[in-house]
Amino acid sequence: MTRTTNPTGATVQADEAQHHLTQTEPASLIERSLHVMRLALEQAVQQLEAEASLPDIADPERLRRELEIPLGAEGRTVEQVMAMVGRVIRSTPSASSPRFLNQLFGGREPVATAAEMLAGLTNTSMYTYKVGGPQVLIEQEVLSRMAHLAGLDAGQGTFLPGGSMSNLTAMLIARNEALGDVREHGLDGARLTVYTSDQSHYSIRKNAGILGIGRANARIVPTDDEGRMRPDELERLITEDLAAGARPIMVNATSGTTVLGAFDPLREVAAVARRHGLWLHVDACLGGSFLLCPELRPLLDGSELADSLAWNAHKMMGVGLQCSALILARGGLLARHLNESADYLFQAHEDELNPGTRSLQCGRRNDALKLWAAWQLLGDEGYAERVRRQRGLVRRAVALINADPDLDLVLQPACLNVCFEVRGADARDICTRLDEERRLKIGYGETKGRRFIRLVCVNPELDGSDLAMIFEEIHTVARALCR
Amino acid sequence: MTRTTNPTGATVQADEAQHHLTQTEPASLIERSLHVMRLALEQAVQQLEAEASLPDIADPERLRRELEIPLGAEGRTVEQVMAMVGRVIRSTPSASSPRFLNQLFGGREPVATAAEMLAGLTNTSMYTYKVGGPQVLIEQEVLSRMAHLAGLDAGQGTFLPGGSMSNLTAMLIARNEALGDVREHGLDGARLTVYTSDQSHYSIRKNAGILGIGRANARIVPTDDEGRMRPDELERLITEDLAAGARPIMVNATSGTTVLGAFDPLREVAAVARRHGLWLHVDACLGGSFLLCPELRPLLDGSELADSLAWNAHKMMGVGLQCSALILARGGLLARHLNESADYLFQAHEDELNPGTRSLQCGRRNDALKLWAAWQLLGDEGYAERVRRQRGLVRRAVALINADPDLDLVLQPACLNVCFEVRGADARDICTRLDEERRLKIGYGETKGRRFIRLVCVNPELDGSDLAMIFEEIHTVARALCR
Repeated sequence: MTRTTNPTGATVQADEAQHHLTQTEPASLIERSLHVMRLALEQAVQQLEAEASLPDIADPERLRRELEIPLGAEGRTVEQVMAMVGRVIRSTPSASSPRFLNQLFGGREPVATAAEMLAGLTNTSMYTYKVGGPQVLIEQEVLSRMAHLAGLDAGQGTFLPGGSMSNLTAMLIARNEALGDVREHGLDGARLTVYTSDQSHYSIRKNAGILGIGRANARIVPTDDEGRMRPDELERLITEDLAAGARPIMVNATSGTTVLGAFDPLREVAAVARRHGLWLHVDACLGGSFLLCPELRPLLDGSELADSLAWNAHKMMGVGLQCSALILARGGLLARHLNESADYLFQAHEDELNPGTRSLQCGRRNDALKLWAAWQLLGDEGYAERVRRQRGLVRRAVALINADPDLDLVLQPACLNVCFEVRGADARDICTRLDEERRLKIGYGETKGRRFIRLVCVNPELDGSDLAMIFEEIHTVARALCR
Repeated sequence: MTRTTNPTGATVQADEAQHHLTQTEPASLIERSLHVMRLALEQAVQQLEAEASLPDIADPERLRRELEIPLGAEGRTVEQVMAMVGRVIRSTPSASSPRFLNQLFGGREPVATAAEMLAGLTNTSMYTYKVGGPQVLIEQEVLSRMAHLAGLDAGQGTFLPGGSMSNLTAMLIARNEALGDVREHGLDGARLTVYTSDQSHYSIRKNAGILGIGRANARIVPTDDEGRMRPDELERLITEDLAAGARPIMVNATSGTTVLGAFDPLREVAAVARRHGLWLHVDACLGGSFLLCPELRPLLDGSELADSLAWNAHKMMGVGLQCSALILARGGLLARHLNESADYLFQAHEDELNPGTRSLQCGRRNDALKLWAAWQLLGDEGYAERVRRQRGLVRRAVALINADPDLDLVLQPACLNVCFEVRGADARDICTRLDEERRLKIGYGETKGRRFIRLVCVNPELDGSDLAMIFEEIHTVARALCR
């Protein structure tokens, strides 16, 4: 292995016979890494030029064949493989395409993408300071910033591989804190209940199944016309369950629901939770980023009353999957419910610098550097401005819908989800056709007896002409369907 | 937003007043992305040149200051931030350094690193074919290849964010399959037990805590002198627990234990599990890659009897964190225990093409492309050869230890973990000093009453002179400690 500094010139004494280790390598790892990275940059250039349009993925069998997906016994050259990877990437829908409006993420902050690339080069794992070094400090900085914005300065956080996992970890800690020795000895068969709105993310119910609580014990609280949890209904359900002998343990309030983008009234929900001694988790995976913007923070009023709060930076903050933070209001809880003594791992430095004592996972990728890079670029002020641009796009889309006699707004958007119907055409048919004809990746929602298109205005790179293009495509397809 | 193809020239009619969307951007997203990626390549060049040595991370406070880690209200330029990211990366220990021997991963296949970079550019999420496109086919190809090598061709797999999560998901499915309606209605309070060896990974015990089984009900099976689970002791524990009224549900066998690298005797363990009707999970996170190499496969003899098997490609296969596959022996189980109906997500294509119906997470990063790229480069034959090189390095290290009167081999390595003592010096002191003096990142293990250095020979780029350097550094430090 060639390298620039090698403090010893020693040669090997033993056992030269049996292997190829002494064969001359065609190039050092460094040279090969650089060569491949230059090839990757070439592919990136082509990809960036291609991402304005959507690729043709209609026929999986054809793709499998044309992209040479099957693996075989024999290898290929680096040049061949990088060309193949490039073709695969150009056949993959890009979340940064102006035609990609399908998810609660989209667009990118280029420095975040680049920082993630560089993090991948060192392949840091985030359990100990010994191997993570300054990445641990960066993670702490970002988490403490997010905790501060949520009004949870005294808390402690961790990064998790997605919002479902952040919610899972919050529910785990809520369960364990309510029940004493469950971590050691398991659940005792008491019927536990958790509360979440009919608009909340499916992971609450799913996680109840995982944690031994049971999906049926994720009690579904009705919402008002805007999709917000009704505190009176929450109170009613808890009272009913208590009367039936259940043991309520947790309320999940959502800040930015998946389909409608609704914000549950945190302060009122917190009052109900507190009255019954229940853990309050806030699933702010989508809406947490409104904490960055002073005029939007009131939608999360009461976040400081949460016991835990989940916030996905990979949604509104322009960093790639995955970047989900979980903040606990009190220090020590993560370690109490997640730490395992592992002598082979935690061999240096105090626990504060070893985040592996506070994480759901063991080996854990570096999710913090990319967010730190984007935050350094934008500053708090730039992030506020970025969210404002997203909201500006929402207002513009609403104006276009209101001015269009063929479109009906489902509700005034509180978040970045703009939900609307197209008169005379089914939203599902429209979205399917838009996808088939490679015009737009956009999804539909169904709730409160209506089915509608959900336009997610999360990519702040979009402008007025993009919106005009988007509505024009929708009209074109709707007209064709009505014929 | 500037782009190369824009099928509509329409301009916006409404609501021009209130925002900045119409302001001229300094450059398009594409141009900015490219600019940043070129800056990233410059930083990568510097990082690759730096990674032969270990950075100075002794003083966290100094690092925090010098690397300008605190975030602030104001932003910076792209050039400033990329320079900062570069400095941070060069202050981060690289897992590809020849002096990095601390973890069960190390080194890199450059095409895998590059493929991950390109996957990050599109920011694919892996729940639906509509957004993942060919990445879904690539994931299927890689998983079916791994299932085939494990002798589980009829099975189905998923990728998870690390081995702990793969083990968690296997244990979840084992629990649910044993108990009927636990997913819907929760655990009923029966005492459940799972079995795992005293050398197995801590995630088995941790996951028992998470799943409501209880850590104390992760029953610890003694091992033989080589660190392999004793089937007779397993039988004894199960029989005892049954007599005490417990309900055994699962056995975890390990192929490649964390510290010693031991392989449990799968066929014999499977016979005990089958006799009692228990689920057999194989934690092959480390050792699974031996399936790539015909002469090493016998160590996993019986893998085809597993109900589930976890295999981390990010350990021996040279791809970055995270890349952990879980293979289930039977199709349908992942969906049965993980799927939630989510109309807003699964809007096109049959379920087979929508891996989100079979995943623990909701949004999920693309972990498969990098492995596919490396596999296309190496082919089955190249991967076998890669593992042979790793084993060749083990043999060479053993020869050096045996030839050295100051070193004692703890046991003949079955895997890539070379465990040895240095006479007259404590392994912990040596490893701490090696780290403090920036000579080596290497860890120690403690088991069977001994404390020893664990040298992980996972980076196939290392050669004889690297090994000589490594032992020289160890001797230098040991001599200084003995003075």
